[in-house]
Amino acid sequence: KHILVVPGDGIGAEVTTVGKQVLELIAQLFDHDFTYDEALIGHVAIEATGSPLPEETLTKMRSADAILFGAVGHPKYDNDPSAKVRPEQGLLQMRKELGLYANLRPIKLFDELLDASSIKPEILRGADILFFRELTGDVYFGKRERLDDGNTAYDTMIYSKYEVERIVRKAFEAARTRSKKLCSVDKANVLESSRLWREVVQALAPEYPDVTVEHQFIDAAAMLLIKDPKRFDVVVTGNLFGDILTDEASQIAGSMGMLASASIGDSTGVYEPIHGSAHDITGKGLANPLASVLSVALLLDISFGFKAEAQAVIDAVDAVLKAGYRTRDIANTTTSPDKILGTQQMG
Amino acid sequence: KHILVVPGDGIGAEVTTVGKQVLELIAQLFDHDFTYDEALIGHVAIEATGSPLPEETLTKMRSADAILFGAVGHPKYDNDPSAKVRPEQGLLQMRKELGLYANLRPIKLFDELLDASSIKPEILRGADILFFRELTGDVYFGKRERLDDGNTAYDTMIYSKYEVERIVRKAFEAARTRSKKLCSVDKANVLESSRLWREVVQALAPEYPDVTVEHQFIDAAAMLLIKDPKRFDVVVTGNLFGDILTDEASQIAGSMGMLASASIGDSTGVYEPIHGSAHDITGKGLANPLASVLSVALLLDISFGFKAEAQAVIDAVDAVLKAGYRTRDIANTTTSPDKILGTQQMG
Ligand SMILES: CC(C)[C@H](C(=O)O)[C@@H](O)C(=O)O
Ligand SMILES: CC(C)[C@H](C(=O)O)[C@@H](O)C(=O)O
Repeated sequence: KHILVVPGDGIGAEVTTVGKQVLELIAQLFDHDFTYDEALIGHVAIEATGSPLPEETLTKMRSADAILFGAVGHPKYDNDPSAKVRPEQGLLQMRKELGLYANLRPIKLFDELLDASSIKPEILRGADILFFRELTGDVYFGKRERLDDGNTAYDTMIYSKYEVERIVRKAFEAARTRSKKLCSVDKANVLESSRLWREVVQALAPEYPDVTVEHQFIDAAAMLLIKDPKRFDVVVTGNLFGDILTDEASQIAGSMGMLASASIGDSTGVYEPIHGSAHDITGKGLANPLASVLSVALLLDISFGFKAEAQAVIDAVDAVLKAGYRTRDIANTTTSPDKILGTQQMG
Repeated sequence: KHILVVPGDGIGAEVTTVGKQVLELIAQLFDHDFTYDEALIGHVAIEATGSPLPEETLTKMRSADAILFGAVGHPKYDNDPSAKVRPEQGLLQMRKELGLYANLRPIKLFDELLDASSIKPEILRGADILFFRELTGDVYFGKRERLDDGNTAYDTMIYSKYEVERIVRKAFEAARTRSKKLCSVDKANVLESSRLWREVVQALAPEYPDVTVEHQFIDAAAMLLIKDPKRFDVVVTGNLFGDILTDEASQIAGSMGMLASASIGDSTGVYEPIHGSAHDITGKGLANPLASVLSVALLLDISFGFKAEAQAVIDAVDAVLKAGYRTRDIANTTTSPDKILGTQQMG
């Protein structure tokens, strides 16, 4: 199996270094033969080549069996709304070029982190949500433009039925293997693209009679997610609403530093933390590598079908947390200072 | 002063009835002369006239000094994505016709409700956020259409600089009178309309040198809002992001049933709960009327400049909560059953 490591920007390098170490250890323990390569994306790619997704990176991506991804982004561009070339373009172009239309974000709390969240433990205990975020459509890829001498700007939220259908089917199938509940999130009381989304969900529902479907508006969903996370099981939604809800849901898992995601579709899968490049802590060895480690578990499971290997990784994370070790972001006032680890030590 | 009561759908009638009783009592106590009228909007207006915002309602609205609003919406339309006439159109058309471009949503927790939230009391205590949601632009009012024999649908997120400028100015001015911190929320790493938004905020900032400005992406903001609500003071954002964030923020106030909003702009102000029509509890006398009561406080303060009257209403809500009275949505397991009140009793 050939794995491409794409660290990207900021803490991406630190956390994927740990992710790769875990892959190496798994290969050794389970007697696999993994080969590795590296490639650039985002701000570091712009600096080196002028492009946020160099042709060479794309070529390497297409021939890999799986991609371990870090993060992209740089504050420089955030404060310069007029920059024409931006790190995020590399990420979006990768998603589109590789046909990564389904972004899976499992939200599950490790028991030991019950207290790391701002939400009450009794609200959280037992919460287990699997998000399916559509990843290659919506306002991320619709036409955008300045008009009127730059004084007006628009973006286009757009969906076609086939795009909705393929992600909603994946969500229905996952719901079948879990508690058979699917929640679809949209804003159908206002948006035409949401009404199309809802029509597709309603049209597919009869093919999955064993799955109970509910529809929520995005505003209500954002509220219910923290009011009563246990009412959700599988959630499917568009690209923009999924971006917002899954970041919000990170509080259910105690910290953004714990959440992994899998982006899958037509070919090579991409596995990455849901956190960003976090330039404020870059290079300090403070980043929590567990989201990258858990991304490795998803990679082993989904792209390679290595269930035992994936479980071994999850068990290791569990054991380390049980032993009381924490990175700073998931530590609290009762954590003894000698149990607070840096990125490499936690790895 | 002439006040138009527009109950709308579902529990709108029950809660505005209480709101109006409070207005009548204030008039009596403070010796004011308020006159009242009523008008239809939403589903009830469609049933009666075929239109979600009848001409007669609009005429009455234009000549009122303030409008006390209930809610709109009906499940019938939510499950029928193809309905051409919808209750929400009445709400959106009202916002546009009356030029209600600024929606103010104060999020403040009454001490007595610290435990009603799913968020930990120590995270919430002291949180006090004032949202400015832009209300007459964005994807709510951009062009939307079906293409391709109905198989593709799009909506347009669109902003012009003058629209952003007028709401951002209001937010800067409010920040001046509070703790001088303004957070602007956008998705400028992806959206052109957000880059325009951010440019306007950056261009105005030098005129308010006493206010510290921060920018957050919507996904990060949705996470930070529950991780650490106290870091926010005044928040300004677009129509769609504001819809999502303020519903989410209702958990900070313990319950959606407690949150009032003011929509202001060129002329008559509209005051309404942020909750919806809640057809599941309509007609049962279970709805929490306090959001409508607190909307009355905003109405007295903002549209009439009656500060003492507004404070009297807030104090009354506070006293009732201190005395232990609750509606079902804000009660908990320690509330004694005889303190759980219906809509009218709470009023
Ligand atoms: C960096 C940004 C463009 C990206 C997104 O919005 O998709 C990120 O927030 C994510 O969720 O992967
Ligand atoms: C009913 C709906 C159209 C409305 C909105 O999205 O603006 C509501 O959620 C609100 O926030 O007032």
